[in-house]
Amino acid sequence: MIAEFQLDWQRTKRTSFPEAVFCSGKSVAQIEAIVQSATERQMPLLLTRLTQEVFSRLSPEVQSVLARSDRSQTASSSVPPTTLQSGIGIVTAGTSDTPIAYEAAATLEFMGYAAPIVADVGVAGLWRLVSRLEEIRQFRVVIAAAGMEGALFSVLAGLIAAPVIAVPTSIGYGVSANGHAALSSALATCAPGVVVVNIDNGFGAAAAAIKMMRICQHS
Amino acid sequence: MIAEFQLDWQRTKRTSFPEAVFCSGKSVAQIEAIVQSATERQMPLLLTRLTQEVFSRLSPEVQSVLARSDRSQTASSSVPPTTLQSGIGIVTAGTSDTPIAYEAAATLEFMGYAAPIVADVGVAGLWRLVSRLEEIRQFRVVIAAAGMEGALFSVLAGLIAAPVIAVPTSIGYGVSANGHAALSSALATCAPGVVVVNIDNGFGAAAAAIKMMRICQHS
Amino acid sequence: MIAEFQLDWQRTKRTSFPEAVFCSGKSVAQIEAIVQSATERQMPLLLTRLTQEVFSRLSPEVQSVLARSDRSQTASSSVPPTTLQSGIGIVTAGTSDTPIAYEAAATLEFMGYAAPIVADVGVAGLWRLVSRLEEIRQFRVVIAAAGMEGALFSVLAGLIAAPVIAVPTSIGYGVSANGHAALSSALATCAPGVVVVNIDNGFGAAAAAIKMMRICQHS
Amino acid sequence: MIAEFQLDWQRTKRTSFPEAVFCSGKSVAQIEAIVQSATERQMPLLLTRLTQEVFSRLSPEVQSVLARSDRSQTASSSVPPTTLQSGIGIVTAGTSDTPIAYEAAATLEFMGYAAPIVADVGVAGLWRLVSRLEEIRQFRVVIAAAGMEGALFSVLAGLIAAPVIAVPTSIGYGVSANGHAALSSALATCAPGVVVVNIDNGFGAAAAAIKMMRICQHS
Amino acid sequence: MIAEFQLDWQRTKRTSFPEAVFCSGKSVAQIEAIVQSATERQMPLLLTRLTQEVFSRLSPEVQSVLARSDRSQTASSSVPPTTLQSGIGIVTAGTSDTPIAYEAAATLEFMGYAAPIVADVGVAGLWRLVSRLEEIRQFRVVIAAAGMEGALFSVLAGLIAAPVIAVPTSIGYGVSANGHAALSSALATCAPGVVVVNIDNGFGAAAAAIKMMRICQHS
Amino acid sequence: MIAEFQLDWQRTKRTSFPEAVFCSGKSVAQIEAIVQSATERQMPLLLTRLTQEVFSRLSPEVQSVLARSDRSQTASSSVPPTTLQSGIGIVTAGTSDTPIAYEAAATLEFMGYAAPIVADVGVAGLWRLVSRLEEIRQFRVVIAAAGMEGALFSVLAGLIAAPVIAVPTSIGYGVSANGHAALSSALATCAPGVVVVNIDNGFGAAAAAIKMMRICQHS
Amino acid sequence: MIAEFQLDWQRTKRTSFPEAVFCSGKSVAQIEAIVQSATERQMPLLLTRLTQEVFSRLSPEVQSVLARSDRSQTASSSVPPTTLQSGIGIVTAGTSDTPIAYEAAATLEFMGYAAPIVADVGVAGLWRLVSRLEEIRQFRVVIAAAGMEGALFSVLAGLIAAPVIAVPTSIGYGVSANGHAALSSALATCAPGVVVVNIDNGFGAAAAAIKMMRICQHS
Amino acid sequence: MIAEFQLDWQRTKRTSFPEAVFCSGKSVAQIEAIVQSATERQMPLLLTRLTQEVFSRLSPEVQSVLARSDRSQTASSSVPPTTLQSGIGIVTAGTSDTPIAYEAAATLEFMGYAAPIVADVGVAGLWRLVSRLEEIRQFRVVIAAAGMEGALFSVLAGLIAAPVIAVPTSIGYGVSANGHAALSSALATCAPGVVVVNIDNGFGAAAAAIKMMRICQHS
Repeated sequence: MIAEFQLDWQRTKRTSFPEAVFCSGKSVAQIEAIVQSATERQMPLLLTRLTQEVFSRLSPEVQSVLARSDRSQTASSSVPPTTLQSGIGIVTAGTSDTPIAYEAAATLEFMGYAAPIVADVGVAGLWRLVSRLEEIRQFRVVIAAAGMEGALFSVLAGLIAAPVIAVPTSIGYGVSANGHAALSSALATCAPGVVVVNIDNGFGAAAAAIKMMRICQHS
Repeated sequence: MIAEFQLDWQRTKRTSFPEAVFCSGKSVAQIEAIVQSATERQMPLLLTRLTQEVFSRLSPEVQSVLARSDRSQTASSSVPPTTLQSGIGIVTAGTSDTPIAYEAAATLEFMGYAAPIVADVGVAGLWRLVSRLEEIRQFRVVIAAAGMEGALFSVLAGLIAAPVIAVPTSIGYGVSANGHAALSSALATCAPGVVVVNIDNGFGAAAAAIKMMRICQHS
Repeated sequence: MIAEFQLDWQRTKRTSFPEAVFCSGKSVAQIEAIVQSATERQMPLLLTRLTQEVFSRLSPEVQSVLARSDRSQTASSSVPPTTLQSGIGIVTAGTSDTPIAYEAAATLEFMGYAAPIVADVGVAGLWRLVSRLEEIRQFRVVIAAAGMEGALFSVLAGLIAAPVIAVPTSIGYGVSANGHAALSSALATCAPGVVVVNIDNGFGAAAAAIKMMRICQHS
Repeated sequence: MIAEFQLDWQRTKRTSFPEAVFCSGKSVAQIEAIVQSATERQMPLLLTRLTQEVFSRLSPEVQSVLARSDRSQTASSSVPPTTLQSGIGIVTAGTSDTPIAYEAAATLEFMGYAAPIVADVGVAGLWRLVSRLEEIRQFRVVIAAAGMEGALFSVLAGLIAAPVIAVPTSIGYGVSANGHAALSSALATCAPGVVVVNIDNGFGAAAAAIKMMRICQHS
Repeated sequence: MIAEFQLDWQRTKRTSFPEAVFCSGKSVAQIEAIVQSATERQMPLLLTRLTQEVFSRLSPEVQSVLARSDRSQTASSSVPPTTLQSGIGIVTAGTSDTPIAYEAAATLEFMGYAAPIVADVGVAGLWRLVSRLEEIRQFRVVIAAAGMEGALFSVLAGLIAAPVIAVPTSIGYGVSANGHAALSSALATCAPGVVVVNIDNGFGAAAAAIKMMRICQHS
Repeated sequence: MIAEFQLDWQRTKRTSFPEAVFCSGKSVAQIEAIVQSATERQMPLLLTRLTQEVFSRLSPEVQSVLARSDRSQTASSSVPPTTLQSGIGIVTAGTSDTPIAYEAAATLEFMGYAAPIVADVGVAGLWRLVSRLEEIRQFRVVIAAAGMEGALFSVLAGLIAAPVIAVPTSIGYGVSANGHAALSSALATCAPGVVVVNIDNGFGAAAAAIKMMRICQHS
Repeated sequence: MIAEFQLDWQRTKRTSFPEAVFCSGKSVAQIEAIVQSATERQMPLLLTRLTQEVFSRLSPEVQSVLARSDRSQTASSSVPPTTLQSGIGIVTAGTSDTPIAYEAAATLEFMGYAAPIVADVGVAGLWRLVSRLEEIRQFRVVIAAAGMEGALFSVLAGLIAAPVIAVPTSIGYGVSANGHAALSSALATCAPGVVVVNIDNGFGAAAAAIKMMRICQHS
Repeated sequence: MIAEFQLDWQRTKRTSFPEAVFCSGKSVAQIEAIVQSATERQMPLLLTRLTQEVFSRLSPEVQSVLARSDRSQTASSSVPPTTLQSGIGIVTAGTSDTPIAYEAAATLEFMGYAAPIVADVGVAGLWRLVSRLEEIRQFRVVIAAAGMEGALFSVLAGLIAAPVIAVPTSIGYGVSANGHAALSSALATCAPGVVVVNIDNGFGAAAAAIKMMRICQHS
């Protein structure tokens, strides 16, 4: 059984994702071992939540095979494709949500997509969103990152036809500390077409967006 | 000390509220005793959360001194003033929020205010809110009732100058069951000028609105 | 401004959804008014969470324009299209999750999609899922409904290439009462490509699935 | 549509608030960019939750245009008005609540209001509150900051005619850690006329107080 | 070991409590068996949370040995002592808290104490409490029952020297539903000398009050 | 009124507590001001949660009037009485609960009571508790500190006649992190006579114990 | 792959459990279909949480193949083995926990084990537990059911060598309503050797006990 | 009584566990005292959650009697047995769960068991688990450690006959932060035979596994 299952699994992986490693909570030794193993197997690797502090403690050999971006806190061991696909866009409610937007953008680039970021269009000043609406409507899939009360998700989904992948962010204090108020807003939205990923999960939103884009390639 | 404190207290009450009774959780005998006591003291009385079922079990004498409204689930023992003041308006996100809006309106009428209800302007269809905006901007104080994800509070407060009293309603299911998602949204809003009362507390929102209107009479 | 906004809004609605009404928490009079208004405007209408008990209390006129399904607790005022599109499938973990699956299927049919239900493939008996895998892999978008611990979401997303829309259901007791354990599992999944809607939100999952299918029509 | 909406939005802003920036969670580079942009546009700017540690890491140019107060953790880029309006007062339950009171007072001063602080009048020693009552009754709007069990909100609102804006503070430990016990008390109060803002939200309380004071200027 | 432990246990029980039975969640057959067993052993028995509905389904034999009070929902199988001790008093914030006060009073009477109830002295109208203060100060131990935001506990403990046993009640809605807001207030109080029992636990408060009164008899 | 209320308040304070200051969350300047004020008024002062780190940052003048104990994290500005009363005892479940026990003991000493600590008698090894039982039974009031699952409260209260003041401690991890599991156990106990204070509130437990001891002096 | 996986799965099932159906939340039609399918396949079937009310609505044919027990709310379609194995015992803290104990006992009997129930040995009266200890020590695996504060789990595990499977029950009110206090106690216990199943999960505890007994048969 | 109880307790301990000390939250002085006491009594001692930072602050004498392992954060004062028993295995979902697995393995070794670790077999890539299944099926008791959504518990228990002791780990972020999502999954599993210990409680899982292995030695 195992051999057959293995074959089947390989088939699944062809339409799936390269290896990605969530670095938060892993030791330096664990991260080094994962990078070395991937390098030996010549498999592209994406690392997320890799802080500068942890990166600087990795061995020079491991550092040398990784390209790290500070604004997205990601690193990858492969050269991104020279031509990137379009169709996915990222929208953020506030300045503080941008690290999550960059994590999503870095994941998308790693997978071959260039995703513009339309930043700081939270709905307390509705004008900011309305003035960028035509631009947002060009996207076939929209990732929206918002903390605080997360009202952006409902308003945005009511204004565009594309599916909205809501990423609640852990921006806020009091009742919105840790992102649970924004998460509840995203799940409880009365606007049809909003789907939700975990708090601060820019990587997961990007992965879902790519799976959606691939729908059209499904035979 | 007690006599002096009593005098002081009476002075406070002059600028305060007539007696109001939250009937949910009180027995028929308790409600009857309260109504009879107020009637004897010739004090106007407002009863909230008085269901038809409980009302029908009150004694005929008590029923006869009360005028009950089914849509607001309130009753009062006094004839409302013939001329009502304006300045306060009520906005609701959905059809299901109207009972709470009616509780607020009945409280306001009992206290001498006529408050129009602008219903069903939730932000998933932003057009509904924008088309009623001029009307809403006439109000000096706005009570907003919304359940589900409560995105109305932030959007509304960003569009009008008046203070917004948010009443989260217990409309919803899953993460929004019991109104906690809407409550979190109201408290976590990034729009300045939103203040919040307890879930489903139409009475409290009306009392706060009146206290705000009285600011201008403060000497 | 309003006229222009209105035009823009109409454009948005063309690519959007017909009216849908969540009946739970609405009074008989409110539901009747909504149906009559939609009938007069000749707009198709979908009603969800419409129990037999509430339906039976609607006026004969309103009942006569509605076709109600007991297993999905939905009703609609329009004849479903004679030809239905394929591409969306529904997977459930247990027998108790089927009402939510039927709500999703009824919404999809109302919108022009025929969605097969692959029922009772929860992962405690992994064989049940594996034996239906080829069938599930034909779907371009998969809606997965699961209660209890919601382990199905992670396992399923690891085995197929299509995006998985997780609908946690309120099936369970103790820590899983009300669906919060399944919701947490869906959001916390380590499998990329899972997106989540509110607990028991079969309608929302269907709406999101349609938005995803329309990605390919985006110009 | 956009041009018209923009005009409308400008009209809204005239009666609204200057830009305010919540610095917690923003990077030094983000704060610098916001200050520089506001300086170029000659717009007054209020920064809240700006710690000394972060302030000291801002560029000398940016530091030079900001006046920072340590007790309120705020900074502003504009000279406060020479004549300040009265009418708003701030009351605190304990010594530990004063930072929040100062944040509110700094926001009010930035907006043109001088707000006295009546500190340390928590109700466990009722005498402290009663002895300051005449002073508190002069205010037309009262902001009350309290942590722990937040009993001050109910007692205060029962003693004065002005609206009470409750700011629960994150002062406490055990069940009152993070301010949730005080928040619940504020929302659950049986005293009519209490409205609530998010935990530690001194800025929001000040903004709401100003909106209330403006009611009397509403035409 | 067992024999010795048994002797020791008997000694403990002499200073302890007669048997008490919490009837909620027990079947009619279980309650009947407990009453019959106690009757045979000639042990006095107190039953709490015994609704009229359940009582009416007990066998006539069992009913005949029980004296049930509707307002306290308790029943006992023994004649209360003819002379009752004083020293314990009960204070309630609102009318709705009286059932819990009666449960405490019935427990105290069963144990030989007459406890007056000072009802409806919630702090939103501080005058009500102040006017009864001399009466309350006569008690050596005070049981205080309050729901909603539970501000009574702090204010009361600040005004009297006796220990205050706080019984949060499940009176309230929204954030105070089920008594958790009042429970948090009781635990988080800044007034020294407040101790707390479970929500609605009038029996437990009475038991603790008696244990406190017995301190003075301790040799 | 104020003068009379003031007199009444002084009377209350005679039977009440000296000033106590919870230092956590207060600035060095605030603590210094409080100590200086008390010193000038020649009032004894107890400071709790005063870490060595904060103490070392106080001015030499303030440090010189305080006697600080590291194990209890308390300090006081008065010489403790030379003769201390007995009657109160402290019991702890584990080694980690001792800091809370010392806070209670220091408070008691400040108020004139010597309270022995019976440490490390948690019920997982029941023998440890049983072997100290005779000693514990000498106390007229027992303070019990326990974290983790807090089973000690129920077992202890079943074995002794004295009232048990449960202090849940924030010792534990996973579900018992922050003391909420122990708090729930204390409140939900099926043993009559247990009363509860906030998590880690050794001071409050001591204050309540003293109020109980004073019952016997009540005239 | 599927055929091989199927074979492997069959092997797993040989050492596993017959089909069990959790009836709560399933419709009458669903339960009937499951019973009929099992009957046709001649597979033994256990139904749990089958109330008398639901049972009475099943078709006479389905009723006729089921033997239902009211005290355990279970039914089975097979004759229990004539000889039952011993080694597993069930201990309960209170009378109210017995329905869960009976569910466990019925499951065990269905699987071939006779499990005695040692009832009502909660630790508030430690004597009750100590006097039954010799009996309990005969069991090789102990299932313990307790609600309220769940102190039984820790005390019991400290007194016996066998593994303790804790079943928190939903018996209680206030903080212990729904069994979460007992669940926390079970998980947070400081006694080694306690393992936990979901609240009220008598079936799961029985299944785990059997898996433990089978350890000794493992080759 | 005490002497007899003591004897009985010694008998219990023979089948029980050596002393284990949870070091987190204990001071250096407390840990030193415990080690010295055990050394004097010549009792083997296991210390868990002993960080390198705390270990380095212990006195040289105490350090010298302890063998500490960094990967398990444990130390012991005794030489492990030269021959170790088999039968228990440990399975982890991800790399980040290994510290907990090592804590369990170190505890088992201290008690005489050698437990292999099958790491990184989380179900998002089902192949990883299936390919190790034969190995896992050799274990008579399986400890499974998983964070995030904890889907491993259900899938694993459905594939093997041995009891599964689930250790939810505090690996994750957003809704899975602190391990509560994994804990809920473990408790809510629909796979029979899963039992659960506290979050990150590798020690407790090991203790339970040993108690299960001893079932076969029970006379």
